Amino acid sequence: MNKLLVSIEEIVGPGGILSGDEVVSRTDSWPLMGGCQAQALVRPGSTEEVSKVLKRCHADGQPVVTHGGLTGLVGGVRSDQDDIVLSLERMNGIEPVDVINRTVTVQAGVVLQRVHEAAEAAGLLFPLDLGARGSATIGGNISTNAGGNSVIRYGMIREQVLGVEAVLADGTIISSLKGVIKNNTGYDLKQLFIGSEGTLGIVTRAVLRLRPLPRSSNTALVAIEEFDHLGRFLHDMDSALGGTLSAFEVMWNDFYRLIVTDGGHHGQPLDGSHGFYVLIESTGGHVDADKIQFEGALEEAFEQGLLVDAVIAQSQQQREDLWAIRDDIEGLVKGLDPPITYDISLSIPKMDDYVAEVRQQLNERWPDSRMVVFGHLGDGNIHLAITIGSLDENEVHAVDTIVYEALGRRQGVISAEHGIGLEKREYLKHSRSAQEIALMKTIKQALDPKGILNPGKIFEQHQETPL
Amino acid sequence: MNKLLVSIEEIVGPGGILSGDEVVSRTDSWPLMGGCQAQALVRPGSTEEVSKVLKRCHADGQPVVTHGGLTGLVGGVRSDQDDIVLSLERMNGIEPVDVINRTVTVQAGVVLQRVHEAAEAAGLLFPLDLGARGSATIGGNISTNAGGNSVIRYGMIREQVLGVEAVLADGTIISSLKGVIKNNTGYDLKQLFIGSEGTLGIVTRAVLRLRPLPRSSNTALVAIEEFDHLGRFLHDMDSALGGTLSAFEVMWNDFYRLIVTDGGHHGQPLDGSHGFYVLIESTGGHVDADKIQFEGALEEAFEQGLLVDAVIAQSQQQREDLWAIRDDIEGLVKGLDPPITYDISLSIPKMDDYVAEVRQQLNERWPDSRMVVFGHLGDGNIHLAITIGSLDENEVHAVDTIVYEALGRRQGVISAEHGIGLEKREYLKHSRSAQEIALMKTIKQALDPKGILNPGKIFEQHQETPL
Repeated sequence: MNKLLVSIEEIVGPGGILSGDEVVSRTDSWPLMGGCQAQALVRPGSTEEVSKVLKRCHADGQPVVTHGGLTGLVGGVRSDQDDIVLSLERMNGIEPVDVINRTVTVQAGVVLQRVHEAAEAAGLLFPLDLGARGSATIGGNISTNAGGNSVIRYGMIREQVLGVEAVLADGTIISSLKGVIKNNTGYDLKQLFIGSEGTLGIVTRAVLRLRPLPRSSNTALVAIEEFDHLGRFLHDMDSALGGTLSAFEVMWNDFYRLIVTDGGHHGQPLDGSHGFYVLIESTGGHVDADKIQFEGALEEAFEQGLLVDAVIAQSQQQREDLWAIRDDIEGLVKGLDPPITYDISLSIPKMDDYVAEVRQQLNERWPDSRMVVFGHLGDGNIHLAITIGSLDENEVHAVDTIVYEALGRRQGVISAEHGIGLEKREYLKHSRSAQEIALMKTIKQALDPKGILNPGKIFEQHQETPL
Repeated sequence: MNKLLVSIEEIVGPGGILSGDEVVSRTDSWPLMGGCQAQALVRPGSTEEVSKVLKRCHADGQPVVTHGGLTGLVGGVRSDQDDIVLSLERMNGIEPVDVINRTVTVQAGVVLQRVHEAAEAAGLLFPLDLGARGSATIGGNISTNAGGNSVIRYGMIREQVLGVEAVLADGTIISSLKGVIKNNTGYDLKQLFIGSEGTLGIVTRAVLRLRPLPRSSNTALVAIEEFDHLGRFLHDMDSALGGTLSAFEVMWNDFYRLIVTDGGHHGQPLDGSHGFYVLIESTGGHVDADKIQFEGALEEAFEQGLLVDAVIAQSQQQREDLWAIRDDIEGLVKGLDPPITYDISLSIPKMDDYVAEVRQQLNERWPDSRMVVFGHLGDGNIHLAITIGSLDENEVHAVDTIVYEALGRRQGVISAEHGIGLEKREYLKHSRSAQEIALMKTIKQALDPKGILNPGKIFEQHQETPL
């Protein structure tokens, strides 16, 4: 053990530091199987320990990579053998839910699902939800500004976080854990730590906003022929449902055919001939009134000529069956073996033309390629799943370039939810201007002048000025 | 005209620069009557002109104070005779509403009410609303993170802004005007400009998110006896209304008696004997279903023993009459002549004890003082209106100290909506730690190293390091 590790062990105790095989046996990002590379993996037990460890690392200019639940998809926590990995796994406490203020204060290492459970036990809802809920931590969710299934109704996690405690590169603790919605007292510093992928500070605690548990839900799958009807239907449903729209998931015909018609596992709630399929859901507070409203909204859309067919779930089982179509990742992977997937945003009116251009370029280069499209259209966020029959690095790079260049020309966003990490770093320029990237580096330089926090993620790091 | 002003005139043209009486005849903050102090008032016509003017000022280290609609309440744009004032009044364009994407791009100088009108003409709603809508500009709203009447339903303006274009101190244009909800491509730079009161950059354009226009509304005034029932009632209504709760305005008994019982202008919809009065409203998408839901929610609260009396508005006129009680600023000023008012946030369970402590301390020092309490309790935001019969500077300072110290001890917030500016600067320490304020100064130093943008607002400015 070198001098630095000895002094870190003094801070966190012998159980707080792992090295050798104990590090390599861990992974550093999903779905990589490779071993985690690091000098040591440090597991502080408190914010004060995080602060002391960082202060010590800062003095030595020692790079530090922070682990949450390791469910990221962009290589956001990849480390090398000279790095120190900091895992917040021991900092997983949940304070008692404040049922009147409807807030809960948690440590960053707590797993998302435990927050769901604590909220529900108090009769409340923590609305952030995503597939990795059993592993992803709140600290990771905050650092990547997680989105998930409920954004159309509640927003990203940025909107669910009322306060944050974070540790800066030099060990300074920035604590603002007030449980209030309105706070215009100078700069909103928590915004620096939300979505910055651990490059500006390490989030150690947060105050989360909780909501009422829904008392009712209504779900339907509808068929729409023309792209131009999708945006109108979204607006009309949002208007007619008056604030209770909680999902608006669109599947392009190619997705529906792959999963339902070809897949054969989902019955066939609607036939496979339509242009688009929308899974729509509302959650509300009154079983009878919500049903009247939901069915009235669909009826109105029929009368407007926006819908051509629809099936309304009549039971929880039917509801789950409809969602199983949208969530059939296994069917997707099987049908597009091997798949390359994208998570992008762009203005709704530009989507149709964008999809057509990408499809055409793919077909020109790979005549046997296949692409299906689906996603949270209500949030302006769609997924492309593409197969060219290969995962050859150069070929995948060529697909990336087609997807992102066409997006950049339309003011689109190369990462709606997943972040940049290492994987998307070279494409950042398609979504952010040179001036924006320079300003990001200015902020990084101001908060972490030695560049020790998660180095090289989001953008390449180079000292701009001597220190 | 000095050399700097000559070169600025070359940028903005002769009509773009005012001096002498034309400056003094303007005011620099409401409700001050004093004349605006500045070397000159510059009125650029485009983002490029703002950029060139700032570049020129930056070279000379010339302080610049930016004017929006001048409706701020904290001295946030006060200037002195050596400053240059930049007014965005000529940059007031609104691009056509994108009805499918439900966004509109506007220049920062546009008045809020014009955005409402443009959205409504397209069948949509821009939900930020406040009393100063006829004068306040979107740039000012963004720079102060405006809240207003609809926060419980839609959030602060921070949640309504999808993208911002801003000019940094050195003239660099940072433009990110994508109309998408989800964008996790590196640091969310717009957050730096929202709520930083013009100290980090000058907002020149923004993409705003629009919503469906509500199709129905339901309004009631209810009486509640005990403070502890308020939080439960808020939660139960929010739950039973399933996402359509759009106002939850609480008036303490002293407010209601002052305005209704003593004021004598509002009839007496409920008698003046109750502990608390809540003005509650929901807006939704279905006239019949919303009425069933609203009345059902109130009935449930009666059954729970939370309500002791209620009146439901049966017409638009009755609705307006109920709101007139909450909004009777004239009655408030007349009844508490002269008034000192506060705009604070704290966790709901701490409010009752807080109000009691402030009241006791006021009564000890000024036995004839009077305080009434009201506000957006659903947002954790209340107003105190106090009279001690004087506006003597030292006496007001003593009241400020009582109000803010008791708040600081409860992790409260000294400015829920209005910001810090000059007026609240000395009290910032009651809401933000020394570490937080130091980090704010680090950010300021990184973005505006010469300290030319709205100097001295939020915190005192002093060069930390020689440049």
